[in-house]
Amino acid sequence: MSGTVYLVGAGPGAPDLLTLRAARLLARADIVFHDALVHPQTLALAERAEKFAVGKRCGRQSTAQRFINKRLVDAAAKHAVVIRLKGGDPMLFGRAQEEIAALEAAGVAYEVVPGVTAALAAAAQIGTSLTQRGSVRAVTFATPRVGEGEDASRWLDAFSAADAGAVYMGMREAPAIAHALIAAGRPPATPVAIVENASIAHARTHYTTLGALPSFADRTFDGPVMLLVGPQFHARERRVVPVTAAAALLARAQAR
Amino acid sequence: MSGTVYLVGAGPGAPDLLTLRAARLLARADIVFHDALVHPQTLALAERAEKFAVGKRCGRQSTAQRFINKRLVDAAAKHAVVIRLKGGDPMLFGRAQEEIAALEAAGVAYEVVPGVTAALAAAAQIGTSLTQRGSVRAVTFATPRVGEGEDASRWLDAFSAADAGAVYMGMREAPAIAHALIAAGRPPATPVAIVENASIAHARTHYTTLGALPSFADRTFDGPVMLLVGPQFHARERRVVPVTAAAALLARAQAR
Repeated sequence: MSGTVYLVGAGPGAPDLLTLRAARLLARADIVFHDALVHPQTLALAERAEKFAVGKRCGRQSTAQRFINKRLVDAAAKHAVVIRLKGGDPMLFGRAQEEIAALEAAGVAYEVVPGVTAALAAAAQIGTSLTQRGSVRAVTFATPRVGEGEDASRWLDAFSAADAGAVYMGMREAPAIAHALIAAGRPPATPVAIVENASIAHARTHYTTLGALPSFADRTFDGPVMLLVGPQFHARERRVVPVTAAAALLARAQAR
Repeated sequence: MSGTVYLVGAGPGAPDLLTLRAARLLARADIVFHDALVHPQTLALAERAEKFAVGKRCGRQSTAQRFINKRLVDAAAKHAVVIRLKGGDPMLFGRAQEEIAALEAAGVAYEVVPGVTAALAAAAQIGTSLTQRGSVRAVTFATPRVGEGEDASRWLDAFSAADAGAVYMGMREAPAIAHALIAAGRPPATPVAIVENASIAHARTHYTTLGALPSFADRTFDGPVMLLVGPQFHARERRVVPVTAAAALLARAQAR
């Protein structure tokens, strides 16, 4: 037996923001290794699979990457359809390359199934586009999470040069981010949207500015937080549009 | 009647890289206004909807944005479920903000359904992650497409500061991009992957360098092209892993 390992993006949180391909693969999976925060309804699609949580979420216990790599290689020797299910997209802050390198070294076939990344769900949540015609044509996605031996500040150079940006897993470093961007010349009044639990229940948005961002550092957030920084991310009066409109519509349709 | 307008990401091209939510909404749609390059199988999901192509793809004839805005507002007066279906994700190079502004001004309810953006599909296609632990922690997404009165070069500052980047709709400006990045201090040997038709049939990848990139400017490409620039995008010997593995697996499953 030599199976294929599918590195699959689970999307930003809402189970129906999974791709059709991911849903169909999950239904055929023999074994699934998943991030801690993947939605239970998403995991339930893998009806006939053994499922193992292998962590990889900031601040939570996680399985060592090398051990995950080994488990994927071992699983491919026993199963036809092995799925590594990652929050968001595998190729953006998903550490996919380390798993790909291990699979290639072991001669295991693999395929990457892209997913909806969290910054896009956060932008959808607040109805504010990451790019803005005429003013924001470059957007930087970054994370302050630092591995061993890494320079903790270099990513900020790229981030401060962009018109707008999204910071993944950055809430704890919020004061450092604010100070660095202001030091790089960004006005303290630059808008920041703090989007918590984008796309899922209890989604909340706090609007602030770079200058006031550090005051949020001590808050407790229930779920994943995305920081959106740029001129367009000011609070604006929105006509109330429940973000669950699609969910409600589809629920009504099913109930009929 | 006051309907809701759903701004929906159609994903990068492959019809099964649509989200479950988008697929379900399309099945309930009364009317769909779609980009020119949305896959026919995706449109076919909107079984009972009137469908209108409204362009918005570089180099092709496209409907004026103001006219699209008006049609969305008018449609919401007549239909319950109006879908504006955009390639990739609506909030990244999708001009969603102009449509949102028009809908808000007219008091029309709307919701954004995020999608898989093309850069993620391109990274999946070549098996190379946009971020790399320890070396690439900031990725810039940019486009050189310029509106009236815009500074054509400003986005390059952001782009050249990032560890890695993806350029959308940038093939025609390839020489200018290469020269600007080299002038900003990037080595001419910096790897570039030119990914054409990511996720769909006839997907092809050309590996080159910033120094040699201008020589590709005169080539004809069949479909959308993504430029991936960064230290990780060198050609590498991949064990042959058909990117259609998932498609083939699922087709076999259906045939049974």
